[in-house]
Amino acid sequence: MASIFTKIINREIPGHIVAEDDDYMAFLDIMPLVRGHVLVVPKKEVDYIFDLDDEVLAGLNVFAKKVAKAIDKSIKCTRVGVAVIGLEVPHVHVHLVPLNTMDDINFTKPKLKLNDDELADIAVRIKAKL
Amino acid sequence: MASIFTKIINREIPGHIVAEDDDYMAFLDIMPLVRGHVLVVPKKEVDYIFDLDDEVLAGLNVFAKKVAKAIDKSIKCTRVGVAVIGLEVPHVHVHLVPLNTMDDINFTKPKLKLNDDELADIAVRIKAKL
Repeated sequence: MASIFTKIINREIPGHIVAEDDDYMAFLDIMPLVRGHVLVVPKKEVDYIFDLDDEVLAGLNVFAKKVAKAIDKSIKCTRVGVAVIGLEVPHVHVHLVPLNTMDDINFTKPKLKLNDDELADIAVRIKAKL
Repeated sequence: MASIFTKIINREIPGHIVAEDDDYMAFLDIMPLVRGHVLVVPKKEVDYIFDLDDEVLAGLNVFAKKVAKAIDKSIKCTRVGVAVIGLEVPHVHVHLVPLNTMDDINFTKPKLKLNDDELADIAVRIKAKL
């Protein structure tokens, strides 16, 4: 069965997409740790990041860099942190999290609740800097 | 001034090194979240991951994959998680953290205290699977 991320990639379900090329896509996490929390995924559905081919794995970082630079320019933060955990959705996803403190990237804390308009506004701001 | 990681790379201070090539090094985090917590660093001292050249950034993931596969084979875990935070030491470092639960990669919790012999033993086990 297609992962929820594959469904976003295929436009079967909506997502707040901020960037896309042939191999990767970036969209907002709808349960963000902080405003501007983005997920970067390879379009090929693989569960575990270290099972990706070297080429896809290498390109994932370079694609994420472009998105992170746009987050840096659009969201107030010290820098963009990175996390790949993968204990939930079985489709590689890199969390890009605008950081001000270490606690901003603590996945055990409650997530923000943002409505669709708030998410759409954040996506527009990030896209404008890409 | 050279970062603490550059000093490990240059063998000016000791480190529990598990892997090295011309551009990258992996060694144990001496304040680990869990046993088998490894840091992967580019030898070139750059503060922010997204300021790395594309080539170095791409290679960082591929080098980390080799190390992560060795951690998978030597440390009991569901998978190896990844985090790059960078609010402390100003030299890019990728945390590779053997995960069983989400809390294993929570950087706000107290670190493990392992003595030098325990760390050396873990490094030997990981190196044996490289």
